[in-house]
Amino acid sequence: MSRPLILVSNDDGITSKGIRVLVSIMKRLGEVIVVAPDSPQSGMGHAITIGETLRLYEEDIFEEVVAYKSSGTPADCVKLAKHYVLKDRTPDLVVSGINHGSNTSISVLYSGTMSAAIEGALEGLPSIGFSLCDYSSKADFSHVEEWVEKIAKQVLENGIPKGIALNVNFPPMQKEAIRGIKVCRQADAKWQEEFAERFDPNGRKYFWMAGNFVNFDKGEDNDEWAIANNYVSIVPCQYDLTAHHAITQMNKDWDWESLKR
Amino acid sequence: MSRPLILVSNDDGITSKGIRVLVSIMKRLGEVIVVAPDSPQSGMGHAITIGETLRLYEEDIFEEVVAYKSSGTPADCVKLAKHYVLKDRTPDLVVSGINHGSNTSISVLYSGTMSAAIEGALEGLPSIGFSLCDYSSKADFSHVEEWVEKIAKQVLENGIPKGIALNVNFPPMQKEAIRGIKVCRQADAKWQEEFAERFDPNGRKYFWMAGNFVNFDKGEDNDEWAIANNYVSIVPCQYDLTAHHAITQMNKDWDWESLKR
Repeated sequence: MSRPLILVSNDDGITSKGIRVLVSIMKRLGEVIVVAPDSPQSGMGHAITIGETLRLYEEDIFEEVVAYKSSGTPADCVKLAKHYVLKDRTPDLVVSGINHGSNTSISVLYSGTMSAAIEGALEGLPSIGFSLCDYSSKADFSHVEEWVEKIAKQVLENGIPKGIALNVNFPPMQKEAIRGIKVCRQADAKWQEEFAERFDPNGRKYFWMAGNFVNFDKGEDNDEWAIANNYVSIVPCQYDLTAHHAITQMNKDWDWESLKR
Repeated sequence: MSRPLILVSNDDGITSKGIRVLVSIMKRLGEVIVVAPDSPQSGMGHAITIGETLRLYEEDIFEEVVAYKSSGTPADCVKLAKHYVLKDRTPDLVVSGINHGSNTSISVLYSGTMSAAIEGALEGLPSIGFSLCDYSSKADFSHVEEWVEKIAKQVLENGIPKGIALNVNFPPMQKEAIRGIKVCRQADAKWQEEFAERFDPNGRKYFWMAGNFVNFDKGEDNDEWAIANNYVSIVPCQYDLTAHHAITQMNKDWDWESLKR
């Protein structure tokens, strides 16, 4: 049996510690190819590059792994990998990360890490985004390595439902070992923004966005709960945003007479 | 009864024709405030500005309307509006657009227009993104004005389910009048990318992303069908990406013995 082909990307950029750890784990499981941004792309959400040019350069940065860096977003990187770099081959797995920082709950919407994984799912490929709930650039990843490997292996062997990307988050390093895995729903939480005002040397105002994370969710079946209780959280994510229940509700509640031609 | 407060944003930038049309319609329905990007932000998805500064300037561009332009993304604009510009007031409605170009089907993921609307929904505000399926900067919006007004009025009067943002798309101007409104699901379609290679004057390669839209969806209950048949499509969108059915499936199908500590 030939070794599986594994595409690796991320949003912290090709030189980050998280992607180095991810590449080293994936090398145990198959043939690895990397297409990742040439600079940090945190908070890029599902941005793509339209009306601007894209660069793509081969970069000899990982031992025995073909790697490319791109000027594009994480989603661009997966598109470039699928439709240019790997034009005649199909990856068996797309992995993104390991992100330096949490992508639980609503952060999935803003996450470049997850946009690469969701882009993989759009292409019909089994895809996983990995994030460590520790924002430090020097974060300790040693406690998550076995879990990343187990989960990737599971997906290679047992698959995931078509069109689904897994949002995997790990608790930060703690005294006690990680307790296990919870398959979760996305917690209902949000960022409550505050804007810090500053003035530049010309006296013109500018802002820094800052925010407090507010968790409204009292359940124990969501990713915030899992991380707070030292479990790995896995949320299966879909790219169909339709709120199907709302179709029924709107067709029932709206005044359709007034909405005719 | 006081007039409703309506926040307007977009992704084509504050000087685009689409937002001018939207502002003029909203002025009939309430007090309008604009916070929009200072330059085009198409394809920005749900990007936000992290680790960079933001600018925000008042701009006297719409008659009798307080307007601000920002260096940020569409999602940033809604955050700035909610948590800075309108700190002590709550908008009754958030509208984004009218986008120059389609945001049907999978384009909702890449859409800056919809990210502003979804950001509004995240804040618990009734929110609508409007798009015209015509990419021209001089697109004719005259056939959609009555529909934009009717839909906005409907939302102000009858509301939408909490946490939902409406993705409204209009067919381009045609000989026959628009036939009516369909509340739809997001069509299962995707962009099939191609990368056009070019060389700069220094002989270094670069790329333009191009793509063909491929529609796999044979149903008549989706937004692609509605637009192709000259209907207004409305897809209610949610920000919970959890594929709830997949939780059951994974808990059943995966080899959990091997995933224990």
